[in-house]
Amino acid sequence: MRIREAVLTPVAFADPPLLNAMGVHEPYALRSVVQLVGEDGVTGLGESYGDEGFLAQARKVAEQLPGWDVFDLPGLRRIVERVVGETVHTDLHGLTGGFSVGKTLASVYALFEVAALDAQGRLLGRPVYDLLGGRVRDEVEFSAYLFYKFGAHLGAAGDDWGEVLTPEALVGQARRMVGTYGFRSLKLKGGVLPPEQETEAVRALAGAFPGHPLRIDPNGAWTPDTAIRVAHALDGVLEYLEDPTPGTAGMARVAARAPMPLATNMCVVRFADLEPAVRARAVGVVLSDHHFWGGLRDTQALSVACRSFGIGLSMHSNSHLGISLAAMVHVAAATEHLSYACDTHWPWKESDVIAPGALEFRDGAVRVPDGPGLGVELDPDALARAHETYLRCGLTQRDDTGYMRRYVGASSFRPHTERW
Amino acid sequence: MRIREAVLTPVAFADPPLLNAMGVHEPYALRSVVQLVGEDGVTGLGESYGDEGFLAQARKVAEQLPGWDVFDLPGLRRIVERVVGETVHTDLHGLTGGFSVGKTLASVYALFEVAALDAQGRLLGRPVYDLLGGRVRDEVEFSAYLFYKFGAHLGAAGDDWGEVLTPEALVGQARRMVGTYGFRSLKLKGGVLPPEQETEAVRALAGAFPGHPLRIDPNGAWTPDTAIRVAHALDGVLEYLEDPTPGTAGMARVAARAPMPLATNMCVVRFADLEPAVRARAVGVVLSDHHFWGGLRDTQALSVACRSFGIGLSMHSNSHLGISLAAMVHVAAATEHLSYACDTHWPWKESDVIAPGALEFRDGAVRVPDGPGLGVELDPDALARAHETYLRCGLTQRDDTGYMRRYVGASSFRPHTERW
Repeated sequence: MRIREAVLTPVAFADPPLLNAMGVHEPYALRSVVQLVGEDGVTGLGESYGDEGFLAQARKVAEQLPGWDVFDLPGLRRIVERVVGETVHTDLHGLTGGFSVGKTLASVYALFEVAALDAQGRLLGRPVYDLLGGRVRDEVEFSAYLFYKFGAHLGAAGDDWGEVLTPEALVGQARRMVGTYGFRSLKLKGGVLPPEQETEAVRALAGAFPGHPLRIDPNGAWTPDTAIRVAHALDGVLEYLEDPTPGTAGMARVAARAPMPLATNMCVVRFADLEPAVRARAVGVVLSDHHFWGGLRDTQALSVACRSFGIGLSMHSNSHLGISLAAMVHVAAATEHLSYACDTHWPWKESDVIAPGALEFRDGAVRVPDGPGLGVELDPDALARAHETYLRCGLTQRDDTGYMRRYVGASSFRPHTERW
Repeated sequence: MRIREAVLTPVAFADPPLLNAMGVHEPYALRSVVQLVGEDGVTGLGESYGDEGFLAQARKVAEQLPGWDVFDLPGLRRIVERVVGETVHTDLHGLTGGFSVGKTLASVYALFEVAALDAQGRLLGRPVYDLLGGRVRDEVEFSAYLFYKFGAHLGAAGDDWGEVLTPEALVGQARRMVGTYGFRSLKLKGGVLPPEQETEAVRALAGAFPGHPLRIDPNGAWTPDTAIRVAHALDGVLEYLEDPTPGTAGMARVAARAPMPLATNMCVVRFADLEPAVRARAVGVVLSDHHFWGGLRDTQALSVACRSFGIGLSMHSNSHLGISLAAMVHVAAATEHLSYACDTHWPWKESDVIAPGALEFRDGAVRVPDGPGLGVELDPDALARAHETYLRCGLTQRDDTGYMRRYVGASSFRPHTERW
């Protein structure tokens, strides 16, 4: 099926003031939605990053797509390589590791690959998981994603999650999230408070949810020595420790001493990062993310590579909407080597661009949609509203650090890279 | 599409007395052909090994397939695991490395995976390469596969390839093969004569075909020291040196000294073999083979794993018929990281089970069929004849060593493992 038009729509949706090592989430999260419209009217959907730099590359690719056949994924790769060239897309938060030409190409390609697979599936009357080798599991388990947070955005009324800066408040957040979604494992975004306080918070979660596997992700806020200390303090409590310290060498130092595996979506973010990480024995779990790992097929290939080297696989999440969740669910459903519940920011958003009902959480898991393609439908009104929000909010890139400085004063905050 | 019946047919076809480190090819090569017949009449084709032990496992799986959906490849894997259990399939020639439960499962699974993908493609009206992510290349290049050989089978008249035991005769064989098929690279199956003679033969090929990349594969017939010596003697002449010596440790010793990459289909034959080979830096090229690497999808995953670790990819071949060639061509067409021309025994057979015309060699390459599925059709009469040949020939497993001993006397021949 040849493409008649590729429509790229930047969207925004309200996001609470969630804290991380780089700062705090701004009032709106940005995403891009692509609709690949085929000559016969079949449409494929994709979703990815919404910051200006990414959109600029994606827009240039979209312009080249009329006439391209959605089955010709190698052709898509060539178009992306031609258009993106040597451009390195960067962002201001750096929460998914270093920037490179390879990661830029993989990210831009992924947006359209997902949409192409959705279109293929709709055209063939098969769910995307069938195009990925068939369904290994009927539902995909996710982890609760707990955040320290401020009680309100700057100049706004408090949100109904309230301020969360203590172990007690965090347990309260977890209770609400587990109560609503049924999550059976919990992840805490750390790197916000001194490691002793975050360790105490994890212990509080362990006490309140004795059967739930736990994780903490300080996004490289700790030195290797601190990371080793925390790892020992949380021995028997964490299923894995995520990106405790930046860089392959530091991760390897920690991995050699930590009693639990180290997970990463910062140290290994491209296929080229696997070899140094394997040789240094730096990571035990790769947190895949089809948005920057080159789409659904390459995420599956990553899974096989990880299994071959005794590395576990789980899944990273940025703030996202329903098209991305559907893609995450399909690739997870078709990927045998998936060692842990996946991450998702899903509970933190209140609106979407897809028609409701296709993706529901039950006992912390999402049943895999078995309609054609991704199994989700765009809601045109919701898309228009989300685009309107994008235009109105005035944000064009994510800047957690800049926003944090508006809370605490420009000179008072620096990102917490190896801060403790 | 659910399967109504899986028909497994052992077949045999005439094979010349080709020499290798284990002995000599018997008068007939054995293969298995599977037809997955769907409830709606669509049929998928697969081809693999034909020795008794493999057939026994494949037959048990085939009996379990009625009612299974051809899109449910994970379900196929479960059936294979249940049926095969802890069985380790072995063969008498050992030319593709060690035996294991994992390799047995992957081999049995692969036969049916290919047939399932053929059925899927026919059902959806798409070529198999589209189910594998799209076509990276329009044609797949193969290498001439040169063999030392006897002039005639025991008790039979001489074949028209004649005896080939000298450099001159080998160059003649190459001229004929290149003349007929247009191959642009040449592989010599070595491990037959003392390494000095094989080195001389490679030099003769280099002289006669100055633009053609060359390879030699002694199947582990050499010690590491001999391998290093030959590698230096053929510096600048070979594009890669294949399995010069057995085992990861020996390969690593040679790899550290050899000026060209070492290729293997003996040292790395399962995903589990990758890590030790990578850590020891033992191999530079993996020779994939979907028949024992778990089918077409896993071959693609192998390709990504190899690329990630800076390892090249090429393709191994056993004696095979047209269904296997079609599968090899489709997976090669859809696999970006394929670093060298693939191997094929194609020129050494005179009959087939598929209707002629779908797969033709031109300039050493096969154009990728773009019909639905694998793009080849079974010829029922040819299949019946090949099955008849199987029944008549009386062979039930390949035994190159036993046959060699019938030529030279039982006590006069032992396989050439690290012989020189």
